[in-house]
Amino acid sequence: MAKKTVQSFFGTPLNVVNVGLRSFAESVQAQGVPAAQVDWRPALVPRMQVTRAGVDIEAANTEAVNRIMQGRPVLVGMGIAREVIPGYHDRLILHAGPPITWERMCGPQQGAVMGALVHEGLAKDEREAAELAASGEVEFAPCHHYHSVGPMAGIVSPSMPVFIIENETFGNVAYATQNEGLGRVLRYGAFGPDVYERLRWMEDVLYPTLKAAVESIDGGIDLRALISQALHMGDECHNRNRAGTSLFLRAVTPAVMRTCPDRERAAQVFEFIERNDHFFLNLSMPAGKAMLEPAEGIEGATVLTVMARNGTDFGIRMAGMPDRWFVALAGIVDGLYLPGFTAQDANPDIGDSTVTETAGFGGFAMAAAPAIARFVGGTPEDATRATLEMYEICYAEHEHFTIPPLNFRGTPLGIDVRKVAETGILPRLNTGIAHKEPGIGMVGAGVLRAPEKCFAEAFEAVREW
Amino acid sequence: MAKKTVQSFFGTPLNVVNVGLRSFAESVQAQGVPAAQVDWRPALVPRMQVTRAGVDIEAANTEAVNRIMQGRPVLVGMGIAREVIPGYHDRLILHAGPPITWERMCGPQQGAVMGALVHEGLAKDEREAAELAASGEVEFAPCHHYHSVGPMAGIVSPSMPVFIIENETFGNVAYATQNEGLGRVLRYGAFGPDVYERLRWMEDVLYPTLKAAVESIDGGIDLRALISQALHMGDECHNRNRAGTSLFLRAVTPAVMRTCPDRERAAQVFEFIERNDHFFLNLSMPAGKAMLEPAEGIEGATVLTVMARNGTDFGIRMAGMPDRWFVALAGIVDGLYLPGFTAQDANPDIGDSTVTETAGFGGFAMAAAPAIARFVGGTPEDATRATLEMYEICYAEHEHFTIPPLNFRGTPLGIDVRKVAETGILPRLNTGIAHKEPGIGMVGAGVLRAPEKCFAEAFEAVREW
Repeated sequence: MAKKTVQSFFGTPLNVVNVGLRSFAESVQAQGVPAAQVDWRPALVPRMQVTRAGVDIEAANTEAVNRIMQGRPVLVGMGIAREVIPGYHDRLILHAGPPITWERMCGPQQGAVMGALVHEGLAKDEREAAELAASGEVEFAPCHHYHSVGPMAGIVSPSMPVFIIENETFGNVAYATQNEGLGRVLRYGAFGPDVYERLRWMEDVLYPTLKAAVESIDGGIDLRALISQALHMGDECHNRNRAGTSLFLRAVTPAVMRTCPDRERAAQVFEFIERNDHFFLNLSMPAGKAMLEPAEGIEGATVLTVMARNGTDFGIRMAGMPDRWFVALAGIVDGLYLPGFTAQDANPDIGDSTVTETAGFGGFAMAAAPAIARFVGGTPEDATRATLEMYEICYAEHEHFTIPPLNFRGTPLGIDVRKVAETGILPRLNTGIAHKEPGIGMVGAGVLRAPEKCFAEAFEAVREW
Repeated sequence: MAKKTVQSFFGTPLNVVNVGLRSFAESVQAQGVPAAQVDWRPALVPRMQVTRAGVDIEAANTEAVNRIMQGRPVLVGMGIAREVIPGYHDRLILHAGPPITWERMCGPQQGAVMGALVHEGLAKDEREAAELAASGEVEFAPCHHYHSVGPMAGIVSPSMPVFIIENETFGNVAYATQNEGLGRVLRYGAFGPDVYERLRWMEDVLYPTLKAAVESIDGGIDLRALISQALHMGDECHNRNRAGTSLFLRAVTPAVMRTCPDRERAAQVFEFIERNDHFFLNLSMPAGKAMLEPAEGIEGATVLTVMARNGTDFGIRMAGMPDRWFVALAGIVDGLYLPGFTAQDANPDIGDSTVTETAGFGGFAMAAAPAIARFVGGTPEDATRATLEMYEICYAEHEHFTIPPLNFRGTPLGIDVRKVAETGILPRLNTGIAHKEPGIGMVGAGVLRAPEKCFAEAFEAVREW
């Protein structure tokens, strides 16, 4: 346990991750070899192979990661949330993260709810919206309870258009709204006329144009193929989506040209997407969700199928216990800030976008995306180390998502609660940062680790299985 | 001289390039540190600082690389070769590489000339075209003599459309044809009805559509910015252009939508480019050419402004001696072959595409493009080492072209004939491979080094300056 040599950039034993006595790392560093020190704690217990009820955990996890990898998420259409998401109703607002009440919601999530209620015409202004939200007449539920995922505040309201992603291998479906761009946008908690105008344009122009185009494409758009390619083009498909957005435009544009009779409208739709390198996030996220859901309900599986934050709480769910949330307080992001903002303005960690890490890309594939350092901070070296470390807590390496700089090694896939408990290594995430007050919007981006408590409680639940 | 530690992937001293006794490399390797052995020869002379005529070589090279870096190549329009390339006439055929006669041309370049003459209507079939080519009634000249560059055979014939790239800093202009795609295409020496049909479509549909779009864009399309971004997206912009092609589509498509009244035609143009990830090569190459030309004629400058092959000969020109070609026989490519082809089918190294390496990207930026290993062979490690080694023979590091995995280090820029002579390190290139017989086309892709003889002769010329 004292020394672990992990696969390096060149596929040769080159870097040292030292788990244990710090002095060993120092002696290695003194020889000019980079060594990362990992705070080490003794394993809580030897790795459990079988639950108390006699279920084979290894077999269950193998089945879980195989289902995730076999999933083929395809963008097949678009629709309006209340019409296409099963169980949706007119007073339902979905949000990112684990369940939460209006009162406990963080500023940006409250801001996004207020904005959504005004946008829906259910309140005439944000003050009235806040009263409505507090009245109990609006039902709040996690996106994850409705086969959906939402970045940052993650608000889905009844009239919002959503992408429809079908997992062609298993037949399940996932949903996400269209990405608004960065800055003063609803998902970062901003509200106001500019925010509503953009949302209206996205409903009236962007949505019907994209819907007609997507639904005209025979076989839809294979998002697993797009993610796989984007990982070879410097994206990790969470906070860097420049390649994914480019590849989506390549896939959809001929259909837009053929189905949209108004050339100026087509050009404006293209430009809206072209000017927002994060557009693909709202496709990579539901692709991840669509891949993960078939693993839910495999008895004894200790890998995660959900990891999500609402800006107040951080929650996880395991494949073997798909209805139970394990929750801890959301963490503080170590970030880069936009001009005029500082860490004092930052809300804690928020959003369902950690579905990407859960599905084996995003922060876990940062070694594929060295240029992301310019967005979330740190260095390309940090990005590589983040990925190398995540292999320590994952059950498998992805067959379809590979990392060229690691000699095409598969991405770390399947966060195993047992391995997190054994190693004390918590999942690394990268994320945008919202202002903590309602109504303002994005203030930066950065990195952090998942909180320990929810993993400790999940592991306790595994021991009692 | 025995040991050189070069900057590693992590910006730390990690890899060893051993120049000298092989036993030293072996002892380093025995300690588990990767070490690359470079065959070493004693320097011919100490590095010359001043020419015999008293010109300051360092100052000249500094001026040369600064001009290259300051250049801002912008795609401003398109036109027909004979109408827009200065000095063009109706019986002029341009070709890749240094000057060559019809008799000495390699198979694929002869094949491309024959195809071009049939395509132009100057011959009724390839046999007649060969007779015309041999008759002396056609003038052959290097693309480089006409501010142009052409990949592989590099044939430009009078009626071919060309991109017009203006270097906005210095006002000079460069030209290149549109990229046909891979496989059975003229630039790989293929001819026949399928080749002519594609060329005709490119003239009748692709060209007018792109011309109208490009010329409607205020300020044109900044190719230096596109190359710079593509290097952060896994391209090296010579044999990997997936990101560059994506970014070009992003830049040009709204204008295509607005200027092309025929939506189906616009869709077909988009699809032609979308299905050819090498489309951007014919923009990155003239961008390189446009950046390099302002350095021509700086007295005493020993960095290259031209490096080009015609499939028979390999030729270089220095900034300080811009009219003089130094020539050696073209090399043999170490390649990956398409199904059905082997090294027996391969023509020697061919094409002007080494303008990319000359301008500080392409093979010299392979560390930015680990996924290129799947196209040209080798491993991502080899790609990184190629770049690291090229710093040894370059005069500068590029201000605008940076490599994320090397912690955003500037690409190696400005191949200095003196450094090549001193170190014995020859430029590394990556390239497509044409069949050696006329009429067939592409057979693979691979890597090689430039031949020694032309550098030795150039260095002799420097000593006599």
